[in-house]
Amino acid sequence: MKINQFAYVPTAHDQIISELTRIGFLNSQSQQINDPQLLFRKLLLQCYLEHSGKTTRIQKIANLMATPTIDANTYTKSGRPLTKEAFYNIALQLLGFLDDLDFSLADPLGSMKKLGLPIIPLPEHLDCNQLIDAWYRLLNTRNKYGQTLIDYLAGRGYYHFLNDHRLVNRPLVFNGKAQATFDTGTLIREVVYVEAPLDSDQDGQRDLLKVCVIRPAESNHGLKVPIIYTADPYAQGMNVEWSKKYSHNNNRSLTHKEPNQLTYQDVMNTYNDANVPKPRPVQGQSKETEETFTKFWSYSLNDYFLARGFAVVYASGIGTKDSDGFRTTGTRDETISTTSVIEWLHGDRIAFTNKSDRIAIKAWWSNGNVGMTGRSYLGTLANASILSGVTGLKTAVVEAGLSDYYDYYRENGLVVAPDGDDADSLAEWTFSRQREAGDYAKIKLAWLTHLKAMRQQEAHDSGNYNQFWDARRLLKQNHAQADVLLVHGLNDWNVKTAQAWNMRKALKKRSVTQKLILHQGQHEYLNNFRSFDYTDLVNLWLTNKLLAVDNHADDVIDDVIVQDNAQPETWTGYKDWGGQQTTWQVYQLTPNNMKNLNGNNTFSDRLANELFNDYTQDLVRWRNDLYTRNGSPMDTHCIRLLTAPLNRALVIDGRPQITLRAKSDANVGMISVALVDYGQAHRLGDYPQVIKSQKILSGYNWRKDDLREFLPQKKVTDFKRITEAHLNMQNRQNSYRVDELIPGKFYELQFEFQPTFWHLLSGHQLGIVIYASDMAYTVHGNQAINYQLDLTKSSLKVPILKN
Amino acid sequence: MKINQFAYVPTAHDQIISELTRIGFLNSQSQQINDPQLLFRKLLLQCYLEHSGKTTRIQKIANLMATPTIDANTYTKSGRPLTKEAFYNIALQLLGFLDDLDFSLADPLGSMKKLGLPIIPLPEHLDCNQLIDAWYRLLNTRNKYGQTLIDYLAGRGYYHFLNDHRLVNRPLVFNGKAQATFDTGTLIREVVYVEAPLDSDQDGQRDLLKVCVIRPAESNHGLKVPIIYTADPYAQGMNVEWSKKYSHNNNRSLTHKEPNQLTYQDVMNTYNDANVPKPRPVQGQSKETEETFTKFWSYSLNDYFLARGFAVVYASGIGTKDSDGFRTTGTRDETISTTSVIEWLHGDRIAFTNKSDRIAIKAWWSNGNVGMTGRSYLGTLANASILSGVTGLKTAVVEAGLSDYYDYYRENGLVVAPDGDDADSLAEWTFSRQREAGDYAKIKLAWLTHLKAMRQQEAHDSGNYNQFWDARRLLKQNHAQADVLLVHGLNDWNVKTAQAWNMRKALKKRSVTQKLILHQGQHEYLNNFRSFDYTDLVNLWLTNKLLAVDNHADDVIDDVIVQDNAQPETWTGYKDWGGQQTTWQVYQLTPNNMKNLNGNNTFSDRLANELFNDYTQDLVRWRNDLYTRNGSPMDTHCIRLLTAPLNRALVIDGRPQITLRAKSDANVGMISVALVDYGQAHRLGDYPQVIKSQKILSGYNWRKDDLREFLPQKKVTDFKRITEAHLNMQNRQNSYRVDELIPGKFYELQFEFQPTFWHLLSGHQLGIVIYASDMAYTVHGNQAINYQLDLTKSSLKVPILKN
Repeated sequence: MKINQFAYVPTAHDQIISELTRIGFLNSQSQQINDPQLLFRKLLLQCYLEHSGKTTRIQKIANLMATPTIDANTYTKSGRPLTKEAFYNIALQLLGFLDDLDFSLADPLGSMKKLGLPIIPLPEHLDCNQLIDAWYRLLNTRNKYGQTLIDYLAGRGYYHFLNDHRLVNRPLVFNGKAQATFDTGTLIREVVYVEAPLDSDQDGQRDLLKVCVIRPAESNHGLKVPIIYTADPYAQGMNVEWSKKYSHNNNRSLTHKEPNQLTYQDVMNTYNDANVPKPRPVQGQSKETEETFTKFWSYSLNDYFLARGFAVVYASGIGTKDSDGFRTTGTRDETISTTSVIEWLHGDRIAFTNKSDRIAIKAWWSNGNVGMTGRSYLGTLANASILSGVTGLKTAVVEAGLSDYYDYYRENGLVVAPDGDDADSLAEWTFSRQREAGDYAKIKLAWLTHLKAMRQQEAHDSGNYNQFWDARRLLKQNHAQADVLLVHGLNDWNVKTAQAWNMRKALKKRSVTQKLILHQGQHEYLNNFRSFDYTDLVNLWLTNKLLAVDNHADDVIDDVIVQDNAQPETWTGYKDWGGQQTTWQVYQLTPNNMKNLNGNNTFSDRLANELFNDYTQDLVRWRNDLYTRNGSPMDTHCIRLLTAPLNRALVIDGRPQITLRAKSDANVGMISVALVDYGQAHRLGDYPQVIKSQKILSGYNWRKDDLREFLPQKKVTDFKRITEAHLNMQNRQNSYRVDELIPGKFYELQFEFQPTFWHLLSGHQLGIVIYASDMAYTVHGNQAINYQLDLTKSSLKVPILKN
Repeated sequence: MKINQFAYVPTAHDQIISELTRIGFLNSQSQQINDPQLLFRKLLLQCYLEHSGKTTRIQKIANLMATPTIDANTYTKSGRPLTKEAFYNIALQLLGFLDDLDFSLADPLGSMKKLGLPIIPLPEHLDCNQLIDAWYRLLNTRNKYGQTLIDYLAGRGYYHFLNDHRLVNRPLVFNGKAQATFDTGTLIREVVYVEAPLDSDQDGQRDLLKVCVIRPAESNHGLKVPIIYTADPYAQGMNVEWSKKYSHNNNRSLTHKEPNQLTYQDVMNTYNDANVPKPRPVQGQSKETEETFTKFWSYSLNDYFLARGFAVVYASGIGTKDSDGFRTTGTRDETISTTSVIEWLHGDRIAFTNKSDRIAIKAWWSNGNVGMTGRSYLGTLANASILSGVTGLKTAVVEAGLSDYYDYYRENGLVVAPDGDDADSLAEWTFSRQREAGDYAKIKLAWLTHLKAMRQQEAHDSGNYNQFWDARRLLKQNHAQADVLLVHGLNDWNVKTAQAWNMRKALKKRSVTQKLILHQGQHEYLNNFRSFDYTDLVNLWLTNKLLAVDNHADDVIDDVIVQDNAQPETWTGYKDWGGQQTTWQVYQLTPNNMKNLNGNNTFSDRLANELFNDYTQDLVRWRNDLYTRNGSPMDTHCIRLLTAPLNRALVIDGRPQITLRAKSDANVGMISVALVDYGQAHRLGDYPQVIKSQKILSGYNWRKDDLREFLPQKKVTDFKRITEAHLNMQNRQNSYRVDELIPGKFYELQFEFQPTFWHLLSGHQLGIVIYASDMAYTVHGNQAINYQLDLTKSSLKVPILKN
C-alpha cells in the first residue's frame, strides 16, 4: 500500500491557525492552552462529534493506542511530554490503518514513510505550535480508504455537528479545497430547455435541448453557485440493439484505391450556419421551472462537488430523448449543442420552461463560472467546447476525450475502429429520441436518410480523410481561452493517446494553463483510487477556476503527473510530456543491431483458415501469439526484432517514429507495427479492481463510492505492448492523398506511433513487431499478400527521457 | 425476457375504486366521467406529475403510440372507442418496453403474453369501469426494470408531487403493499447500547451491544413504526488478513479414528447461564440518544423499506467493534446477543445511551413488531432468533441461513469446509473488536485463550459430532412462534440446501406459516431480479406481519416457489418441497440398469503427484475431469454410472438417498457421491449478471439498485452437478459414533444427499459419480487407498415429483 499526494497546498503557521479556527478545531479558548497534551486531547475529542456525549468520546480516544502499551486517553492525561511517535501512532489509527497489519505501534515514523504519508519536521517532543502544524497536515493527509482525514470526518458529519450556521450550506475552503458543508438532502433538481442556434433535424425550428440542473437549496436564497457541467449523450438511453445493424464487418479485404492528387483544400469542410431559423418569439418570463427529473447514472466526482456547494448540470444534446435534433457524431452542430448550455448558464442564451409555451427562464442562481467534466464522448464534448472559446467556460477536466474523430476511427488511410464501430453506428447508438415511439414516428424518415448519408460519406471502405472527417476534426477551430486538466490512460486503445497529445499541442498555442495526468489504465475514471489523490486535485483545480479562490492551484499541481508502469502505486510529477529534455535514440533494424527472433524479413498475411477463424473469436490469443518470443503460429506472419537486454532502465517519453523500406506483392498493402516491452514481470492490470466497496464518503449522508486500484497481476508475463501504429501503403504521403502501389516495388514508409510514457526496466528488451492485418483494429480479409522488408534501410526513432 | 409475478393481490372492483381514489388516480370528478378516452387521458397525464406544466404532460403522452400510426394524445381526443390493443400498447410503453425491440405495436396482446405480463379479461372496446380495472392491474404490473409501475412512479416522485399531506410520511398500502411515501432525506440515525444477559468475554459485566437504528423523522412525532432488523456480524469490519492464520490446511490425510460407543447423551451440550452477572444499576432515563453513525454497507432490501415507513436496525453482536463480548460462532450466547436487541425493541430489555453513564433509553418509537432479514451468517442469526421464540419477533426473511453448524462445517464424520474455514477462523474473521487497538489491548490474552479452546474443541481432525457442535445445533431449541420466509439457492455449496430443509422440518412442528423460495443461484440476494417479483413479495409479507395489514399474504403467496433450472426466467409455485406427491424411484447400480462409463467397480484415490498438485490449484478443472463422460485423468479414480436418456422429463423433489456396498483396502476411508445431470444444454449460470445498473428506484431521491438476472451461459455444457454427499466410512451409524473399519471388508453404507429440486429434461441422463477425496470440500491427502464397490448390492433412491 502506497499513497501519493499532489494536492496539498503548503501553508504557513498563521494561515494554519486561521483555517483551523475557521473549521472549529481551534478557538479562543484553545489558543490559551500551553500544554500540548491538553490541546492534543481536545483535538482528538473533536474528531468524534457524532457522539454528543463526552464519556463516549473519551471512550473513543481510549480505543486508540498512543504507544504499544498506553492508550490515548491515559496518555493525554499522563503529564508526559507529547512525543512525535505517539502523535503518529494516533495519526495512523485516525487514518484507518491497523496496528499489526498496516503499521507497527513500535515504529510509527517508519510506517508513515513506508505508506508514503507525509511527516512534518518535528523535534522529539512537540510544543503546541508544532502540534497545530502537525494536526493541520494530518487533516490533509489521505487515509487508508482514499480520502483526506478532513473529508472522511466531513463524511461522518463533522461540519454538520459543529452546529455553526455560518459553516453549513456556505462555501468553505480548507487547504485550498471546497469542503463538504452542504446539505444534499434538499438539493433542487429541475429541467429547462435551451434553444440552440441550430436546426439539426431540419424541421424549420431551432433545436430545443433538455438540460437537467441539480443545485443547492441555498441557491434559492441568494447564493450564486458555480457549475460543473457534463455533456453526456448516453444519459437518456443507448440503442445497443438497434445500432447493431449499423455495425461494420471488418472481416473483409483491403481493397485497392484509385490514386488521386488531392490537396487539403479539396477535403476541407466549411461550416455553414446560413440556414439556421430565427429564434422563437418569447411569450413570457419565469423564475420557476416546471419539471424535475430522476437521474439514473451520475458521475461520482460530480456528486462529490454537490456536497461542496457546486451546481451540477447534465445535458445530452441534439438527437437525444426529450431534445430536438439529430445525432451527428462530432460535427460543429454537436459542439454548438454543447456550448449553448454554457451560454445559457452564463446568461447569453435563452432557455424555456417547457418545449411549447415559450416561457423563458434564466440561470439566475449561477455565478457564471462553468467547468466541464466527463470521460470519452463526454470528454470529447468538453474538448470541443474548450476549443470553441465559449464565454463562461472557465475550465474542463477532460478524461480520455477525442480531439479529432479521424484519429479515432481511422489511421493513415486505414479503418482502425474496433468492434465494427463507426461514426454512423455511434450516431444511432446515441439517438435516444428513437426510444419515444411517438416522437420517433414524426422524424423516422428524415433520420434514416441522415444516417444513410453519414454511412456513405464516412467512406468506411476507403479509410481516407475527406470532408466528412474534416468536419469532425475538433482541433480545426482553436479559440481556447480556458484552463484544461487532461487525463488519459496510457493503455487506452479505445480513445488513443494521440488524442490528448494533439489537444496539448493545440493548447500550447493559446495562453491557457494546462495540466495532464497519465495513468496505467485503459478507459477509466480516476476519482476513487487509493494511491492517487485525484479527487482532491480536481477540487483544488475547480475551487480555483470556478469559485475563484486564490489557492495557487496552477503552481501546486505538477504540470504532468504520470503513473509508473513498472512499479505499483507510484505517481510522479514532470514538467511536460514529450517536451522535456529527451534524446532521440535511433535503432537500426539490421541483424547486427537487433535480434531477429524468427530470422524473417518477409512474411505472409495469409493464415490457415481455421487459425484465422480462431483468432477472430479470440483476440487475446491472437495478440499473445503475435508478440510471444517463444514461437507460435504467427511466426511466419510477422517480424519480431528485439534489442539486447537493457543494462539500465530508460523512459520513453513522447511519440516514437518508424521508417520502413517495405514492399507488397499486391497492389494493396498495410503495415502494422507494435513496440513491445519484453521481460518477466508482474505487470499492472489495465482495469482497476475494487479494493473496498462503498467506502468513500462523498459527503454527510450522501453517496458512497468504491475504492479502486490498478493492481499488479498475479501472473508473471513476458511482454506488454507499449504502443502501436498502422499505415495503408497507398497513403504514404498523408491520409487523403492516395498513391499507386506497384506490386514488388520497395517504398519508404515513415509514420508515428501513439505517444507514450513508458518505463523500461533494466534487463528488459525493447521489441518491434511488424505485421500487416490487425485482427483487433484494421480490416482483415486473410488475403494472400506477401510482404518484404529491407531491414538494412529501416529504423526506429525513440524519444528517451534524460535522467 | 420473461416476467413472473407472485405478489399481486386479486382485488374486487369496489376496492379498486377505493384504492385508486386513495392514491390520487381517481377523484369525485373523474368518477363522473363516462367517456373512457377522457378518463384514460386523465390517468395518463397523472403519470407525469413531475412535470407541473400541463403542456409538457400532454407532450409526454404524445410521445406514446396508441396504434402503429396514432399517438396517445391524438388518440385520446379522437372520439373513437378505446380498444384493448391501444390500452396495452400504451401500457407496454409505460412499462418501459420499446416498440420494434421488446414488443410490437401491431400485436400488443401477443407481446404482453410473451413477456409474461398479465392481461385482464376485456371486451374489444373498454368502458370506464373496465378501464379502471385494467389500469389498477397495470399499476401493479412489473416493468422492464424489475419494478411495478406504481413503484417506478413513486421512485420518480409520484406520491410527493400529489401535494397531499395525508399521503406523505404516513404508511400507505396499495394492493397490499406499503408504498414509498416517506421522505428519506430526513431519516434519523442513532446508536444505543443494549445490555444483554451475557458475559461472553468474562469480564464480570454484562455485554453491552451497539445497535444502529434508522427510522423515519415522523416517528419523532407520534408515528409508531415497525422494525426490520438485520443482525450482521460483518458490518463493523472483517479480519480478512488476521483470520488467515487460523485457516486449516485440508491438504492432509484422512486419519484412523479410535472406535467408540458414544450415544447422544455423551455428546449433548447444556447451556449454562448461572454465571451471568447482574444488570448494571440504571442511573437515569433519556428519550434522546447521544450518537449517530455512518453506515457503509446496507442491504438494499432494507433501504427499500426505509422509504416505506419501516425502521431498520443493524446490530453486529458480541465481539464486534464498539460492543463487548467475544465471537463464539453459533452458540446460544450469539443467539441471546441477537435476541436481546429484539427484546429492547419490544420493550423487554434495557439499552443505554452510551457504554459508561448507564442512562437508559427505550425504543419508544417502535410499534413492537420486529422482522429480521439477511443472508448467510445474517440469516443464520435470524433462524436462531426464530427458534428461540423471542417475543416481538413477528417474522424473518431468511436467505441462505444455517440451522445447524455441524452440517455447515462437517458431514457424516468428515470435514466439508471449503477454503480451510472452520468455527475458530470465522470467530477471528468477525472479531472486529481487534480493530480498535485500545480496546483489543485490554482483552487480547483472554481472546487468544478463547480462540485456542475453540480450535481444540471443534476437532477439525476427527470430523465427529461432539459437545462443541451440539452447542451449535440451532435446531436443538425449537420455540418458533413467528412466520418464516426461507430463501435458498439450489446451487449453494457454501450454505447447503439441507440447512433450509431441516429448518422447514422443524417449523412444520410448530403452528407457524412458512414459505420457501428456491432459486438457481449460489449464495445470492434476490431483491433485484427482473424475472421474479421478490421485493414485492417481501413487501406483501412484511406489510402483513409487521404493519398488521390484512392483505391475505399467507394465501396469496405460494407455499413454495421454485426457479426452474432448465428454462431461464421461469418461476413456479408449488405446495411443498419434498412433501408433495412423489414416487421414490429406485435405481439399481448393476450394469444392466446403469451404463458404467469406465467399466470400473474399483478405483484408487491416489493421483500422480503432478496431477494432484494441479488439481489443488484448479478445482474447476478437477470437477470437470471428475464428471466428464469423455474420458479424463480421473477415469480410474471414480466410478461413473449413467441412466439411459430419459424418454420424458422428470423432476427430483426432495432428498435422494444412496445405499452402497463398499470396501477400502486401508483402515480409513471416505466415499463421496455426486448426482449429475448429463445432456447438452445452455445451462443457467450460478452467479447473477447485472443487466442494467442503478435502474431500480427504491424511493424518491433515494437509493438505486442494479437489476440482475441468472442468464443462460453462452457455452453449451454436457453436465451439471445436481447434488452430492460425503461419508466417513468409520461413521456408518452416525456422526459421533465411530466404528472400526477393517481393510478389505465390505460394508453397507447408507446416506443422504443434499435435498434438491431438479428438472431433468427429456433426453438427459441421470448420472452417479462415486469417488473418495473431494478436492473442494474434504481433507485430501492423496493417499494410496483403493476402494471397491459391490454394484450389484448398491442402489439409489430418488423422490420424483408426480405430474
